[in-house]
Amino acid sequence: MNMDNIGYGVEAVLKPNSIAIVGVSGSASKKEVVGGTAILKNLLRFGYTGKIYPINPKYEEIMGCKCFKSIKDVPEIIDLVVIAVGSDGVPALMQECGDAGVKAVNIISSGFAEVGTPKGKELQEKILSIAHTYGMRIVGPNNLGSINLLEKVAASTSAGLYCDKLIAGSIGWVSQSGALTSSLYGRVMDAGIGLAYVVTLGNESDLDMADFIWYMLDDERVKVIAVYIERIKDTEKFKKVALKAMQVGKPIIAMKTGSSERGAAAAMAHTGSLVGSDSLYSAFFKQNGIIRVEGIDELFETAELFSQWSKYGSVENLAVVTTSGGAGGIFADLCEPAGLNMPPLSKDIKDRIMKEIPEYGSAQNPIDMTAQILQMPDALLEVGKILDETSEVDGVLFAISALPPASAVQFAKNIVEYCAHSKKPVVVCWYAGSMNGEAIDIICQKGIPCYVDFEATVIALKRRSQFLKYKKAFADKEDAPVFEQVEVAKSGAFSESESKSFLRKYGVPTTREILANGWNETLNAANEIGYPVVIKIDSADILHKTEADVVRINIKNDAELKIAFEQITQNAKTNKPDAKINGVLVQEMIGGGVEAFIGATYDAQFGPNIVYGLGGIYVEVFKDVVQSMAPVSYTEAMDMIEQTKSAKILKGARGKTYDVQSLAKLLVSVSEVVARLGSQMSELDLNPVIVTKDGVKVVDALLITK
Amino acid sequence: MNMDNIGYGVEAVLKPNSIAIVGVSGSASKKEVVGGTAILKNLLRFGYTGKIYPINPKYEEIMGCKCFKSIKDVPEIIDLVVIAVGSDGVPALMQECGDAGVKAVNIISSGFAEVGTPKGKELQEKILSIAHTYGMRIVGPNNLGSINLLEKVAASTSAGLYCDKLIAGSIGWVSQSGALTSSLYGRVMDAGIGLAYVVTLGNESDLDMADFIWYMLDDERVKVIAVYIERIKDTEKFKKVALKAMQVGKPIIAMKTGSSERGAAAAMAHTGSLVGSDSLYSAFFKQNGIIRVEGIDELFETAELFSQWSKYGSVENLAVVTTSGGAGGIFADLCEPAGLNMPPLSKDIKDRIMKEIPEYGSAQNPIDMTAQILQMPDALLEVGKILDETSEVDGVLFAISALPPASAVQFAKNIVEYCAHSKKPVVVCWYAGSMNGEAIDIICQKGIPCYVDFEATVIALKRRSQFLKYKKAFADKEDAPVFEQVEVAKSGAFSESESKSFLRKYGVPTTREILANGWNETLNAANEIGYPVVIKIDSADILHKTEADVVRINIKNDAELKIAFEQITQNAKTNKPDAKINGVLVQEMIGGGVEAFIGATYDAQFGPNIVYGLGGIYVEVFKDVVQSMAPVSYTEAMDMIEQTKSAKILKGARGKTYDVQSLAKLLVSVSEVVARLGSQMSELDLNPVIVTKDGVKVVDALLITK
Repeated sequence: MNMDNIGYGVEAVLKPNSIAIVGVSGSASKKEVVGGTAILKNLLRFGYTGKIYPINPKYEEIMGCKCFKSIKDVPEIIDLVVIAVGSDGVPALMQECGDAGVKAVNIISSGFAEVGTPKGKELQEKILSIAHTYGMRIVGPNNLGSINLLEKVAASTSAGLYCDKLIAGSIGWVSQSGALTSSLYGRVMDAGIGLAYVVTLGNESDLDMADFIWYMLDDERVKVIAVYIERIKDTEKFKKVALKAMQVGKPIIAMKTGSSERGAAAAMAHTGSLVGSDSLYSAFFKQNGIIRVEGIDELFETAELFSQWSKYGSVENLAVVTTSGGAGGIFADLCEPAGLNMPPLSKDIKDRIMKEIPEYGSAQNPIDMTAQILQMPDALLEVGKILDETSEVDGVLFAISALPPASAVQFAKNIVEYCAHSKKPVVVCWYAGSMNGEAIDIICQKGIPCYVDFEATVIALKRRSQFLKYKKAFADKEDAPVFEQVEVAKSGAFSESESKSFLRKYGVPTTREILANGWNETLNAANEIGYPVVIKIDSADILHKTEADVVRINIKNDAELKIAFEQITQNAKTNKPDAKINGVLVQEMIGGGVEAFIGATYDAQFGPNIVYGLGGIYVEVFKDVVQSMAPVSYTEAMDMIEQTKSAKILKGARGKTYDVQSLAKLLVSVSEVVARLGSQMSELDLNPVIVTKDGVKVVDALLITK
Repeated sequence: MNMDNIGYGVEAVLKPNSIAIVGVSGSASKKEVVGGTAILKNLLRFGYTGKIYPINPKYEEIMGCKCFKSIKDVPEIIDLVVIAVGSDGVPALMQECGDAGVKAVNIISSGFAEVGTPKGKELQEKILSIAHTYGMRIVGPNNLGSINLLEKVAASTSAGLYCDKLIAGSIGWVSQSGALTSSLYGRVMDAGIGLAYVVTLGNESDLDMADFIWYMLDDERVKVIAVYIERIKDTEKFKKVALKAMQVGKPIIAMKTGSSERGAAAAMAHTGSLVGSDSLYSAFFKQNGIIRVEGIDELFETAELFSQWSKYGSVENLAVVTTSGGAGGIFADLCEPAGLNMPPLSKDIKDRIMKEIPEYGSAQNPIDMTAQILQMPDALLEVGKILDETSEVDGVLFAISALPPASAVQFAKNIVEYCAHSKKPVVVCWYAGSMNGEAIDIICQKGIPCYVDFEATVIALKRRSQFLKYKKAFADKEDAPVFEQVEVAKSGAFSESESKSFLRKYGVPTTREILANGWNETLNAANEIGYPVVIKIDSADILHKTEADVVRINIKNDAELKIAFEQITQNAKTNKPDAKINGVLVQEMIGGGVEAFIGATYDAQFGPNIVYGLGGIYVEVFKDVVQSMAPVSYTEAMDMIEQTKSAKILKGARGKTYDVQSLAKLLVSVSEVVARLGSQMSELDLNPVIVTKDGVKVVDALLITK
């Protein structure tokens, strides 16, 4: 084991046998304490069973714990030291910890790289260097600490702990925002959702998000991992973690801020780190099987469904059982756009259900038991039994309106009883205020996912089916080819003919074309290719050919060719007298078809990536494009095409069909070229690519290298 | 006053001086009672101060109230009788009420039209007829009753009242779903949101949603009205109410189900009423200044902001003040797509703010005071003061993360103190669980809108600015012209030439064209119009001209014309031998431009309406269309065009600009034609309409009348 191993040292942070705290004061009698004193108080009040060593030369004991003058006075090797002193004092303490063989430190103190000053950065480098010397791990600095709810290690200053609860469960949680984590912690506990770990990361000077996720993937008590991300420090490391998560089948659910420019700026001000482009993050998450959610509450609402339903397969056909037609209508409205199927039930099933529910109910799906169901307490069990037996549905959602409290409790008990015998997964949406809190608690305590919002219920179901699709795609995935970087002939812009020659080496289909020198060669080339032809001036110095008026299309004969040749030759001279001209590029003219656009860039954080969209107006007006990391597999390429709204055009709107398979193959080839080029590429544009019913051809291309 | 007057009789329902209850039993000792017994219990426990008359011959008194043997035994004219007996007994009781001069009855009993049987419908007609005879109003049947929180009249069986709270406020609430209302009631009270009235409507046999809204518009204590709609029974009546709402400046906020087909079906099963097309509802709401929300919680979150901010103008520039960079980033992400402006602050303001907040904070907008603000309790007041003085922002959002409870209370008091002196509206998002409940209550109790969710905060702000836009549009609105129905020459399909002749009468610009009979007339017409021309077979029996191959375009000379003439004449004969042919329609050929589509239908519920979109692929693939009730004003027509994504194309993507003004005028003209036609129209399609830089022309048209 060494420090390059992902997750190394996390055990000492999350499951320490002993904890020393530096920066703990005698102010323990105050109700609201901060820093190291808060850590000590929280460890004690939540029942930490390991050894605690407060370090303070001024006191004999604090809160009943014997104090030690310094780290070196502690009579054993300490797993975790929490440091909460002024930043200037941290390096000396780190040295002391190193000398004493401490395994990890969690640095609460701020005043390091996050403040953006040279002094702050220097201090952070200093402590990191000390840690490296001793093979000791750091969480933070500028951190709140972490909580292990399974073993009751509340080594955190988080204000969230004022909720006074540690509900143990199977969700691991890693976050780049301390304040949001504190806020969310209380809400999650209020909702009765159990957690395994809560980790905030501070400046991530050493141990980072990937390390903690990795560790949790190895802990069989963790079923799902929820993360709050402002930026990913090391995308390659994160990819490894995501791959392992897919291999062990544990979902990672991510909330990422910075989708707006202002949001990105706010996150930047906050973290002092570079925030990558948001659309690249989306592509990165998707290609690595990570579920991206859009709201902070959604993170846990989704995680709860994942954790409680981890033993079930996918739910393709959902039965919705309600106590009110209104709620049924709302669920129907929400399920449809979310892609959740609520199949109409067969006559046989409907007849059986109608026998169990009030006369004025409905056995459509949604099944409306009506509020009168209160007078028929066993009907829920009977309806549930019918749904459990039929193959027409494979999951059940109970949508319950507010009920008188005692009836609600009976109803909740019926749901729990039903779930104890049901083979199919059950989710509850209990749409009521705190007056039905007792009933809701009964359901939550039995590990049945229970939401108060319609929207939250549907979003969680939607995210789960999304993850199961990712999982299937992962299982079917071809191994991605590994590319070495290629040598490119030159740096800077390539002419069209140079760009296409390079691309053809990697199987990219382009227009047939001949680079001609002078009139005679041009004439011969046109006749060899066959009219109609297109001619263009080929020069790396004239990249905007239309603006320079050096393109003529649909040339039908020698006479037209002559005129066109004279014009574009003259225009090139007038437009850019000092341009280096390679010659006249004579191309076949492609008629019909639909225009597509394929572009590529190299991102400093995420590396090579490609952008696809149908060309012209679709890209310009509707911004109907999709981005992916390169390379992409054929399946991923097909999925990119499918994701655009304009996919309908390729599928045959207006009676035409197009060769989508060849387009997907082209995306694969381009993505492989781009992966080969790696950081040598600055930009690649294929625009237009013409898609016909018989294939695809790149009509114009521009490569710019670094 | 008579029963045709909107709102007549509502006073007796919502503010009764006396209430009699029929169907009340002696089971009052039970904790959970239903029907009339629940009404009596709720009236008593929530402190109703009027007279209560339980009607039950078997008891001397129930819950301390003296019982009467029958309605006629009550020694005064009763304002409201609540009826909660089996449906068969209701007509006789109604008769008795009528004889006794009762003003209104609220019928809890079910078993009427909602069950869909002939007997149920008959019973409902019977009670309605009795009510009409006596000039007595009905709420329901199949209803929960209503609550007046201002005067503590809890005449409702709603399970929501088990929350044990009546928080009086300025939101009026009218709902077509009893169960959802019960659920939401408890949640709204939990959130500390005050209400003026809660009305559920049941079957709306007599008094309907419009009546209750009308009444509330006249009550100055009501500032905003929230409605839950499954269907609007009488759109004309609702329009009158919406118009009055705009005149008195009170927003109506609506949640409407049935956006999906399944949702519509579920709502139908529930109410037994026809559900109109959802997109027509959206158009209806918008054109009548009603704010449509998309979620049931949103209804009250939005209403709360409206009610508390009713004295303030629009907020164009929002300052966001946070205790965490993470929260700031989330708000920035949410505000941008919601169209809420968070302007960067000037250097002067930033410098002043930086002096008040911790060193590591940020004075960008969002302003990050950081969690250290806890140690600087007055900083919030100072920052607030700077924001109150500057003209750079006109509203402030405080986004607070979880804090230790005692500090949270101090923080809340500071916010309250700030608001007491601030000239600008303040909204708070306190993102924490119940551990900060006390602090949140302090804010709510002072009438400062306070949310726990980021999303809810932003949506409420967005809806408010939407309403202020509607209000402005209303103030600027031209009077809509009033049309009489026109006589149309025939019923059924019109040929293209007939359709266009009709449209031209109302100022609709079409292609220049001549209807020619035989070859000689066709030749003369082509030469009169001038080549290139288009020719088409004109027949009301051949509506799909392309499919029948009876159109030839871009005819350049006499010779081409002859061939085209022969072909289409022959094709018409082959394709439809018995078609009545009016002749050959010779048209000018319109080159260039962009294709638009304008359609119209007559809806049984909403009346005439028009649909607009850019033609061809935009309508087919992107479904980029917008629908409005006819007629529309020029401003509304411009707004319709603006609402489509393809508006960008008309504004000059690719360097071309188009005559959008003429397109808007065409929409106005078409909408006026459609309004004139009224129910005589079955369908009208103008497809394509060509928009060029110089104007618009209808190239093809099809009118079908009834």
